[in-house]
Amino acid sequence: MTDNQINMDERTGLVVMTSDECGELLTSTPIGRMVFNDGDQPLALPVNFAWVDDTVVFRTLEGQKLHAAIDGAKVCFEVDRWDEQSDTGASVLVKGQAVEVTQWAEQEQLEQLDVRPWSRQPWRQAWVRVIPNEITGRRLG
Amino acid sequence: MTDNQINMDERTGLVVMTSDECGELLTSTPIGRMVFNDGDQPLALPVNFAWVDDTVVFRTLEGQKLHAAIDGAKVCFEVDRWDEQSDTGASVLVKGQAVEVTQWAEQEQLEQLDVRPWSRQPWRQAWVRVIPNEITGRRLG
Repeated sequence: MTDNQINMDERTGLVVMTSDECGELLTSTPIGRMVFNDGDQPLALPVNFAWVDDTVVFRTLEGQKLHAAIDGAKVCFEVDRWDEQSDTGASVLVKGQAVEVTQWAEQEQLEQLDVRPWSRQPWRQAWVRVIPNEITGRRLG
Repeated sequence: MTDNQINMDERTGLVVMTSDECGELLTSTPIGRMVFNDGDQPLALPVNFAWVDDTVVFRTLEGQKLHAAIDGAKVCFEVDRWDEQSDTGASVLVKGQAVEVTQWAEQEQLEQLDVRPWSRQPWRQAWVRVIPNEITGRRLG
């Protein structure tokens, strides 16, 4: 495939996004959704995040469902955009494992990012990193 | 609790949305995410949807992962909004069961809605309805 070719998913009629396009959406979108299981109940919670060193990083409250559910579990992280005027959209799914960032040096580095948790409780915030196994994206238009 | 009282989630510092507020976000948001398990992998896929008779309805391609995964399974449906300028946001989670709409009369009624699938394949579209067990919402600001 050359750079100019568009890869179409024949089944859905959607365009398969290149890895550059996926990276662009991950870089330019301020919120995404952490998707995980709470027991047998799949859940999605929106978080402000950053795309750093090809990983998703965000903060969450310790002791919350999300915090309890993530450790080493299979998760995915979803970002999308939708434009009502032009009826176009795109979505990227990052499948992988979530881990808590426990190293002080790493935490220090992440604190420099403009990533704020939705929660307004400043204490007991944990940094979480999603390490991708697979990144896929589809767009419409 | 009177109508004027704000119910705060002490743990997160977020405001617990009333059921009217949840309904407003579900009515005014054109896309949401269907959250389900593909085997042991939780996934979220964006869809255009409508909030009808206190249920989520949308269309999806027959035979896709989503179509295969939904039947009677525990799912959730997530909508959110995020405003970068004001740093405010809201999200609603609809936990419930997904069922395919197989009755012709129901399908006819749903066809009147302005709900288009992302996929541009007009054939083999199934209508899916998410019947809520629980609807919760949190907002920031």
